[in-house]
Amino acid sequence: MSVVEDPARSIQLTDDGDLRHFLTLDGLDRTMLTRILDTADSFIEVGARRIKNVPLLRGSTVVNLFFESSTRTRSTFELAAKRLSADVLNLDIGTSATAKGESLSDTLLNLEAMASDMFVVRHSRSGAAHFIASQVTPGVAIINAGDGRHSHPTQAMLDMLTIRQHKGGFEGLKVAIVGDILHSRVARAQIRALNTLGVEEVRVIAPDTLLPTDVESLGCRVDDSMQSGLADVDVIIMLRLQRERMEGALLPSEREFYRVYGLSNEKLAWAHPEAIVMHPGPINRGVEIESAVADGPQSVILDQVTNGIAIRMAVMSMAMGGQRATAWNRTGEGSS
Amino acid sequence: MSVVEDPARSIQLTDDGDLRHFLTLDGLDRTMLTRILDTADSFIEVGARRIKNVPLLRGSTVVNLFFESSTRTRSTFELAAKRLSADVLNLDIGTSATAKGESLSDTLLNLEAMASDMFVVRHSRSGAAHFIASQVTPGVAIINAGDGRHSHPTQAMLDMLTIRQHKGGFEGLKVAIVGDILHSRVARAQIRALNTLGVEEVRVIAPDTLLPTDVESLGCRVDDSMQSGLADVDVIIMLRLQRERMEGALLPSEREFYRVYGLSNEKLAWAHPEAIVMHPGPINRGVEIESAVADGPQSVILDQVTNGIAIRMAVMSMAMGGQRATAWNRTGEGSS
Amino acid sequence: MSVVEDPARSIQLTDDGDLRHFLTLDGLDRTMLTRILDTADSFIEVGARRIKNVPLLRGSTVVNLFFESSTRTRSTFELAAKRLSADVLNLDIGTSATAKGESLSDTLLNLEAMASDMFVVRHSRSGAAHFIASQVTPGVAIINAGDGRHSHPTQAMLDMLTIRQHKGGFEGLKVAIVGDILHSRVARAQIRALNTLGVEEVRVIAPDTLLPTDVESLGCRVDDSMQSGLADVDVIIMLRLQRERMEGALLPSEREFYRVYGLSNEKLAWAHPEAIVMHPGPINRGVEIESAVADGPQSVILDQVTNGIAIRMAVMSMAMGGQRATAWNRTGEGSS
Repeated sequence: MSVVEDPARSIQLTDDGDLRHFLTLDGLDRTMLTRILDTADSFIEVGARRIKNVPLLRGSTVVNLFFESSTRTRSTFELAAKRLSADVLNLDIGTSATAKGESLSDTLLNLEAMASDMFVVRHSRSGAAHFIASQVTPGVAIINAGDGRHSHPTQAMLDMLTIRQHKGGFEGLKVAIVGDILHSRVARAQIRALNTLGVEEVRVIAPDTLLPTDVESLGCRVDDSMQSGLADVDVIIMLRLQRERMEGALLPSEREFYRVYGLSNEKLAWAHPEAIVMHPGPINRGVEIESAVADGPQSVILDQVTNGIAIRMAVMSMAMGGQRATAWNRTGEGSS
Repeated sequence: MSVVEDPARSIQLTDDGDLRHFLTLDGLDRTMLTRILDTADSFIEVGARRIKNVPLLRGSTVVNLFFESSTRTRSTFELAAKRLSADVLNLDIGTSATAKGESLSDTLLNLEAMASDMFVVRHSRSGAAHFIASQVTPGVAIINAGDGRHSHPTQAMLDMLTIRQHKGGFEGLKVAIVGDILHSRVARAQIRALNTLGVEEVRVIAPDTLLPTDVESLGCRVDDSMQSGLADVDVIIMLRLQRERMEGALLPSEREFYRVYGLSNEKLAWAHPEAIVMHPGPINRGVEIESAVADGPQSVILDQVTNGIAIRMAVMSMAMGGQRATAWNRTGEGSS
Repeated sequence: MSVVEDPARSIQLTDDGDLRHFLTLDGLDRTMLTRILDTADSFIEVGARRIKNVPLLRGSTVVNLFFESSTRTRSTFELAAKRLSADVLNLDIGTSATAKGESLSDTLLNLEAMASDMFVVRHSRSGAAHFIASQVTPGVAIINAGDGRHSHPTQAMLDMLTIRQHKGGFEGLKVAIVGDILHSRVARAQIRALNTLGVEEVRVIAPDTLLPTDVESLGCRVDDSMQSGLADVDVIIMLRLQRERMEGALLPSEREFYRVYGLSNEKLAWAHPEAIVMHPGPINRGVEIESAVADGPQSVILDQVTNGIAIRMAVMSMAMGGQRATAWNRTGEGSS
């Protein structure tokens, strides 16, 4: 029906252009991103109700397939799946069958054979979720919960949802992303999503050593000063400083980083007075961000967490819907 | 509506005097303890049915927040929550976000933001559950699953339920608590609950080195001899000997402890012929208690376990009810 | 009602001959094995539906009691229990109460007292599941998920289900079992089940050092050559080579084992052209089996995994049914 434009699109969308995996924001257009945000909005309402469960995935099996341990991320997906009424199986693959010398591909085939409907995949290797999506049987949806430096697309989308919630939309917004862009799983996806959704300008603020070489080609302006970078922005996205990176001598010291790039109330004053402050958590207080800012009136950090559940519910239910529609078409064609 | 009498009351009760957290027995009067026991009784019946689930917490999220590992305690709360139809998330915080340098308070804020309704908290530090209750947003209920030496109030209440079951009530009862009172999480709460519920006499039997200095002020008689202490008692509560305490030279040896304080059939004969024998488990057979007694006709140790599920279902459903009523009032006031 | 013939029968069957535990295939006749297969067949259909859950164990509590860790086996039982709508509690006993010095028997009594309905038991010691079944209160069903070298009866039954699915029945079949019979948890049960179900011939193919001494008494023909052993067989069951056994000098080397006993397409050609190839997983590719065979058209290895869920659902629901019927009779007798 629609023309396949690039490989990511062909993997993660059905022929009708619906989501069937959620691997990356690459290849998703403004309409699709907006559909995800709208679906998530409906789950925000559900989260505020006394009974927070909806039966969309009742009788479905969701496997949290974590090759890299992350209690925080796993918990949000586990809660999202349970609120969709799915049965959830948590597998920490580090301690499991692969240890017996089984290949990833055999582990996957086995899990599929157990009639799993969805794998939420976390892996330290870039591209792992794509690889798995290319391997699985039709009918099984893959959700990327972070693969290497490559992507963490639900994180980027929960940020978009938070921005839309507080700013009403994306038109005309100036957004600054501050910190370790180079090692961030999410900065790249954020830049892409912000551009796709039509913001006016994305600025990245970071020392040279923490910037990827091709960063401007993603659609942003590089700034190495907080003062000029934050000037008049509506949204500030602070990135988490991976402390283990500090040892690699990419940076002088945490204290020095904080002095130059840490978000204090003083620096926050350079932004638009109604600017919102975001951070993916967990916060290093006094490293990327001052406590007064993290807990202050402009901080929307906890809204991001709430929105994270809603976004995960949205992409899980949409991908499952896409898989089912495809299966239906396949069966329909087969029987006609 | 009612007058707030002490800080614990103000934290764990609503303005209408209903439970909204369950942190300690301090400040809970006989009416409240009796309500908890009555509610638990109704869940005992549920436990005996083929379908043991009730929908009281359907669509609610209960987080087992264990800063200190305890499979046994966690399992009872997990089962209780599942029988109330809640979604359960087990978090072993030792291995989680706090390890990334996140503060307790940030961890809590994040979990709340995920729309959690209840935290079951286990912590090695006294007062941790209170602290958390003082921090959380209105609407989130805290259940104390043991904090340091301070309190383990569901354990004390399951003991009360077991006594009432077997003795019909508390009036006129003589109760002996035997063993390591000093390090016990539960002895203090037991003494308080027994007095509140109106027993005739509580006796504690322990070597001096295992007695807190202020113990008599809690409302009990200290006895250092088993023979006089057990004379004519209706209920014997044996405490678990924390073997790791033995190394601190507080006691000569396990064998010596058993000789003097271990409950054998010989010593049991000093009590009332229909006395019941209780122990919180896990039992150190041959240290605090002889196998013949633990498995004998006067032992109600396994009833305690069964009652533990019912008590946990009771306080969880009551606290959630209190939080909802409060939220309702808040909303009602807001809209009027 | 019926005459009790042997101890296994008396433990795992009710007076009416229904399953109440599932410990071993010993003592189960062709009618019972066929009932299990038929019940599993009905769950295969359920597994293919969009909503894969049935309410047979709703409100029941299933405890996965794993004294020996096995993520793969635990996952299949966890999924099976959840698809039967049970509440599931996973207990890795290695890290739990027994570590505090509690005996197995006390752990069991405690879990029963929590109103558990079923224990799925995995243990490294032969006979552990039987022992536990002999200890538990009436009403609690025990499912053997592998005990030592003794038995892994759900694995044997999923193999039977897979054979019946692909061959239509057992009459006239020639079946070869290849590899480490001596250390296999499942070979003994397979031989017994195949004979009970009426196959024409069972052959075991293995080096002398990997054969139990009494193997022929189980009802099979020993062959030490793949060529003669595989001649004209309809079913080939490859066993997993426990690599850790290799160090015990029972075998020259993996390469040597593969050369002689590894299933390649070349050797597969000796079998009947429509022979199916089975393996319990996880596969050691290039050790017991060539990848081309494992992934080839005659391989039914992934069907085995799918059937494993169905078989586990079958024995769990049948054993629970037997326990309930017994309880009903007991109550009925008591009240008359």
